[in-house]
Amino acid sequence: MGAALALGERGRGRTTPNPNVGCVIVADGIVVGRGWTQPGGRPHAEAMALAEAGEKSRGATVYTTLEPCAHISTRGPACSDLLQLAGVARVVVALGDPDLRTNGAGVARLRDAGIAVDLGLGAAAARSAMVGFLMRRQHGRPAVTLKLALSLDGATAMGSGASQWITGPQARAHAHLERTRHDAILVGRATIDADDPTLDVRLPGLEARSPRRFILSRTPDLHHPAPDCALPWENLAAPDAIGTLQAIDTMLVEGGPTTAAAFLSADLVDRLLLYRAPIVVGGGRTLPDIGLSDLSEAHGSWAMTDARTLGSDRLEVYERVRE
Amino acid sequence: MGAALALGERGRGRTTPNPNVGCVIVADGIVVGRGWTQPGGRPHAEAMALAEAGEKSRGATVYTTLEPCAHISTRGPACSDLLQLAGVARVVVALGDPDLRTNGAGVARLRDAGIAVDLGLGAAAARSAMVGFLMRRQHGRPAVTLKLALSLDGATAMGSGASQWITGPQARAHAHLERTRHDAILVGRATIDADDPTLDVRLPGLEARSPRRFILSRTPDLHHPAPDCALPWENLAAPDAIGTLQAIDTMLVEGGPTTAAAFLSADLVDRLLLYRAPIVVGGGRTLPDIGLSDLSEAHGSWAMTDARTLGSDRLEVYERVRE
Repeated sequence: MGAALALGERGRGRTTPNPNVGCVIVADGIVVGRGWTQPGGRPHAEAMALAEAGEKSRGATVYTTLEPCAHISTRGPACSDLLQLAGVARVVVALGDPDLRTNGAGVARLRDAGIAVDLGLGAAAARSAMVGFLMRRQHGRPAVTLKLALSLDGATAMGSGASQWITGPQARAHAHLERTRHDAILVGRATIDADDPTLDVRLPGLEARSPRRFILSRTPDLHHPAPDCALPWENLAAPDAIGTLQAIDTMLVEGGPTTAAAFLSADLVDRLLLYRAPIVVGGGRTLPDIGLSDLSEAHGSWAMTDARTLGSDRLEVYERVRE
Repeated sequence: MGAALALGERGRGRTTPNPNVGCVIVADGIVVGRGWTQPGGRPHAEAMALAEAGEKSRGATVYTTLEPCAHISTRGPACSDLLQLAGVARVVVALGDPDLRTNGAGVARLRDAGIAVDLGLGAAAARSAMVGFLMRRQHGRPAVTLKLALSLDGATAMGSGASQWITGPQARAHAHLERTRHDAILVGRATIDADDPTLDVRLPGLEARSPRRFILSRTPDLHHPAPDCALPWENLAAPDAIGTLQAIDTMLVEGGPTTAAAFLSADLVDRLLLYRAPIVVGGGRTLPDIGLSDLSEAHGSWAMTDARTLGSDRLEVYERVRE
C-alpha cells in the first residue's frame, strides 16, 4: 500500500476533479502492474495497472488507495468491473470512495463477484493524499492550505513592506514544489500590487505544472494581467464561499497577511505551511485580526503534522483539528 | 567529562560571581570523588571532589570543566595547589579560565609539578554551561536570555493585552525551571502594571531558588513592591548598560514585547527561549521595531541550538551568532 500511495502522489495536483489514486498489482510476490490517475483524471489508476499486468492479473492481489469506482462513464468503464473481468483474487483498499455513485457499491460489486476485499489499510495516509477530493465531496469546497513565510517574531515583511527575503532559497524552492501539488494559487490584491508575482512554478522540469492563479480582491474592476481569475472579497464570507470554483479541489493561499486573515476568519484554512526563518524582524507586518474574542478560543484548533529543516529555515505543517 | 558537566549543572544560577564548575575524580576506573561549585561560589568543585576522594586521589585522574584556579583567596587555597598536594597523576580540563588571576597559570602550575594536563575535552558544553561567567569576563556584562511565549503568528498577547494563556502548563513550568538557572529576572514596567507578576519560582522544592528581580523602567520614581531593583531604561542604551549590576552574570528577560525590543535593539540578547503555542491569534501584540533597516541585516544572527515538545507547545532555543 505504501507503493500505491507513492504512485498516487505522481498525480497530485493534476487529476482534479478526480482523486489522485495509486494502484499496485502483486502476483506471486512480484509487482506485475502499477498505475496512478493520469492528468485530467483518466485513465484511472486501476485501469492503468491492469493494462500493464495483462494476463498476470489473474489470481493476483490489487492494492489501491481508493475504493474502485462502480459507475460507468463516457470516459471509461467502471474499475470494479475491470477488476472482475481480469480475474483478480483479492483487492486491498485504503479508503472508501465518498462519491455517491460509488460509496460502497464498488466494494459490494467486487465481493458479489467472489473477490476478497480488505478495507482500511493506510487509510490515514490516503485521506491526507486525496484531501482535496474528499473535502469537495464532504464540504463542497476545496481543501485550503495557507502558506506563510515568517520570522521568529511572526513578521511576514518588514514594517516598510519589504519581504524579499524572509526565508532562504531551499524554503522558497519547497514552496514552489507545493504549488505543483495544488489546483490553484490565490494571493491578495495587495500582493499583486506590491510584488507583481508571476505565481508560477520555477523548478527545473516542473514549469508546466503551474496551477491556476486566483486573486482575492475587494474591487471587481480588476485589470491586472497576472491572475487567471478574480475571487471577489465578499464571496469569502459566505459559507460556500470558494465552493463554486470549478475544478479546484486544492487551493494554496500565498498571502499576504490580509488575505491570510480573511481565510482564517472564515475558518476556511485546513492546513498551515509555515516557513520560519531564524531571524528577528521587529515592528514587521503580522497577521491582522481574525475575529478572536478570547485566547481560549484559539486553543485546540491546530495539530503539527510535519516539521523539517530547509537550509537555515524550518518548515512546520499544522492541520486544522475539526470534530 | 559528561559526569563533571552534569555535576556543574547543580550549581547553575547559584554560584555567581564564581563559575558553576563540575569535577569528577577517577581512580582505577572507579569514581572516587565528585564535586561542584557550592552556592555562593565556595568550596570550589575540585576542593569538594578532593575532600571526598581523600587518599584515593593519589595517582588518580581528575576531570574538571574549568581550569583549576591558580590564585589563593581569603576564601580558600588555589585548587591547582590542592591537586598537587593530593598527588593526582592527570588532570583533564574542558575549558581554560579567562579570569586574569588564572588564565593558563593553573595549567602551568600543574604541569610544572609533573602532572599531565589535557585541555579541551567537552569545551563547547562547558562554554555553554558557564556562559554567564564567561560573558562577564569577556564582555563585562551578564549573559542575557530573552524568553517569549508566542503564538504561531508571533503574538505575545491578544490585541486587548490578554496573554493568559498563550502556552500550556508544561511550557510555563519549564519557564519557571529556567528562572532557577539565572541570577536575575527582568521585566518591563508595563508587565508589572498589567500582570503584577510575582516573578518567583513556583516549582515544588525549588521555591527557594527564585532569582533577583529587576524591572526596566522609563520612570525613576518606582514604588512598586515587586522588583528588588529598578534598571533605568536609559542605561540600556549604553554599551556597558547592564554590566554594572553586581553579582548578576546571567539574566532572564521575560518581556513584554517593548522590553524585549529594547534588549534586542541594544544587541544585548545572547539566547532566545521561544515557547511557541499551536494557536493563531491575529491582530495580537508583537515585537515592536528593533532598529532594523534592511532584511539582509536580520540574517545570520541566530542559530537554533535546541528544540523540544512541551505538552502541546514547542520550545525552540536560539543562540546569538557572534564573530
